[in-house]
Amino acid sequence: MIERYIVIMAGGKGERFWPQSRLRRPKQLLPIVGDSSMLNQTVERLSGFVPIENVFVLTNSVQRDAVLDVCPQLLKENVVAEPVGRDTAAAVALATFLIKQRNPEGVFAILPADHIIYDQDAFHSVLNSAFGAAEKNDVLVTIGIVPTEPATGYGYIHQGEEIERIEGHSICRVERFVEKPDLETAKGYVSSMEYLWNGGMFIWQVNAIEQALKSHVPELYSGFLEIEQEVKAGTSLLKALADFFPELQKISIDYAVMEKADNVVTVPANFDWDDVGEWGAIVRHSTADSDGNTTKGSVVIEEGSHNLVISSDEHLIALVGVDDLIVVRTADATLVCRRSDSQKIKNLVERLGKDEKYKKFL
Amino acid sequence: MIERYIVIMAGGKGERFWPQSRLRRPKQLLPIVGDSSMLNQTVERLSGFVPIENVFVLTNSVQRDAVLDVCPQLLKENVVAEPVGRDTAAAVALATFLIKQRNPEGVFAILPADHIIYDQDAFHSVLNSAFGAAEKNDVLVTIGIVPTEPATGYGYIHQGEEIERIEGHSICRVERFVEKPDLETAKGYVSSMEYLWNGGMFIWQVNAIEQALKSHVPELYSGFLEIEQEVKAGTSLLKALADFFPELQKISIDYAVMEKADNVVTVPANFDWDDVGEWGAIVRHSTADSDGNTTKGSVVIEEGSHNLVISSDEHLIALVGVDDLIVVRTADATLVCRRSDSQKIKNLVERLGKDEKYKKFL
Repeated sequence: MIERYIVIMAGGKGERFWPQSRLRRPKQLLPIVGDSSMLNQTVERLSGFVPIENVFVLTNSVQRDAVLDVCPQLLKENVVAEPVGRDTAAAVALATFLIKQRNPEGVFAILPADHIIYDQDAFHSVLNSAFGAAEKNDVLVTIGIVPTEPATGYGYIHQGEEIERIEGHSICRVERFVEKPDLETAKGYVSSMEYLWNGGMFIWQVNAIEQALKSHVPELYSGFLEIEQEVKAGTSLLKALADFFPELQKISIDYAVMEKADNVVTVPANFDWDDVGEWGAIVRHSTADSDGNTTKGSVVIEEGSHNLVISSDEHLIALVGVDDLIVVRTADATLVCRRSDSQKIKNLVERLGKDEKYKKFL
Repeated sequence: MIERYIVIMAGGKGERFWPQSRLRRPKQLLPIVGDSSMLNQTVERLSGFVPIENVFVLTNSVQRDAVLDVCPQLLKENVVAEPVGRDTAAAVALATFLIKQRNPEGVFAILPADHIIYDQDAFHSVLNSAFGAAEKNDVLVTIGIVPTEPATGYGYIHQGEEIERIEGHSICRVERFVEKPDLETAKGYVSSMEYLWNGGMFIWQVNAIEQALKSHVPELYSGFLEIEQEVKAGTSLLKALADFFPELQKISIDYAVMEKADNVVTVPANFDWDDVGEWGAIVRHSTADSDGNTTKGSVVIEEGSHNLVISSDEHLIALVGVDDLIVVRTADATLVCRRSDSQKIKNLVERLGKDEKYKKFL
């Protein structure tokens, strides 16, 4: 019986949201935007689309407890921890295995845990058409976001001809996936009206993605068959994953499958969407004052400071004569970062990880 | 019998060193530069020049315990609290009264509590000549610092002809005191070789300063006579100060006396001197790294940040892509300030004082 499932990818480290985001409590488990964690918002957004027992979350061993903590509505057995991170192709293979175990005829969506979509109805409508396409045909469906600006932080999907329409949404061929462009290229993409943002949301039948993995990353696929056989032979999933998962090829699902497969289609979606990729992005979801300053917690800004993103709690942060800064304070660490350099926070976190003295701040 | 005394003015609020400097524990009671408090360094710098029982400290009621805490070597009765701050002329009058009580023929120096002078021998030598001049003549002696740069943060003394030399030091007339100049004017002062920095260090006989107060601020002087009479009549000093001190005219000793008196002389001094007036000044007393960054405590700076002054403790402060900032973290408040705006910290602190919500941070 065809049935719909969701697998939420929640194993990220959220390094660009350091110091609030930590290894054990990364971005997706924090209320970066809104009052509940990004993951919980993602789970709640599916309410009414699939029953909660059809929602799975892939996480990692250090975060599993925190996932259950912020999303107590999830079935415990649906929260599965990867023993180590092996990028998204291995995660998709694991998801495929989990859904296949439940229902070999299942159709499932892969969704990131930490994106913002406010319009739940519009989201359900697009997702419904995407499932519809995946259920009818042996295709790999991706949701493409209609760009609202020439963003350089996202990959793009070159949209081809419309194949069909399902419940008001176009189902289009995908010409190709393209990497994050420079600003000029991005401007060209946006004005051409032929490109969509790659939001990392995929929908397919178990059988379709299994065949795609077999064709395009056979080594990874055979590694996965071993896990499947172990579990069939009576080994626990935990042990089978511990034994075989670390050996899987480390590659993204985009490189491994999406960019190679010729049966990829996309559903253009024009709901508001934001991957909230770095601290500066929270400005888009907050109300700035007339000087462009966005604050949370106890903050005093002397006149003449602009475009600040400040996050604290009871602890007072006072700013004098500064512009374009991100200041984020937590109990044990404070970040002061130029807004245009927020991508470098990742480098900083990597550096902390290499120094025994600073590992406790990860 | 002529005897030498020192009165250290330690009642400042140190607002420009917020958030480390607080009402109850201001700059002079903190180890802003060096390992002991600025006040303790000032007291220790006098060791060998006068006995400790001849060293007085003027403070205020909220700071008195902290003064005794950081300077346990002081005689308790020599640490006198003003009930309210009434600027430096009233403080000088109080100092005059205290020394007069001890010894009407006393000669005393007024010294700020929070300046840095590393060369104790050179300091003693200049101070000795200044006392020599004050002991011989009915003059108001001020120590003038030979400028090393066209500083705009200090008042200047226009030095006149040499009157005499005492133990190797010139005693010169003072043509006039001038306010903090702009940079061009300051450059002219420095190149003329006729101007000295006004370091706020004064030396005089009890009788000389008493006459000067009487001549130039008679109202303030008569207020002081009342305190003297009350104490002679048996009222405690504490009560007499509480009764009369708050009514004294609020004016600086420079305005009240030094700029008006015609018997002012100066001893040019060329020891290294720094009033450590704002956070940026601590750079002069620290070793910066090759990017010009001065740090204290747990600090990680991503490549590409320059000219930072960062102060923390165990709490990690991480900086990415920022230049010319002062970041000072304390247990309950953190300051992020452009270095060239450090004078505005005072405004910020004033603002905090006006808001019930923020008063606890003073």
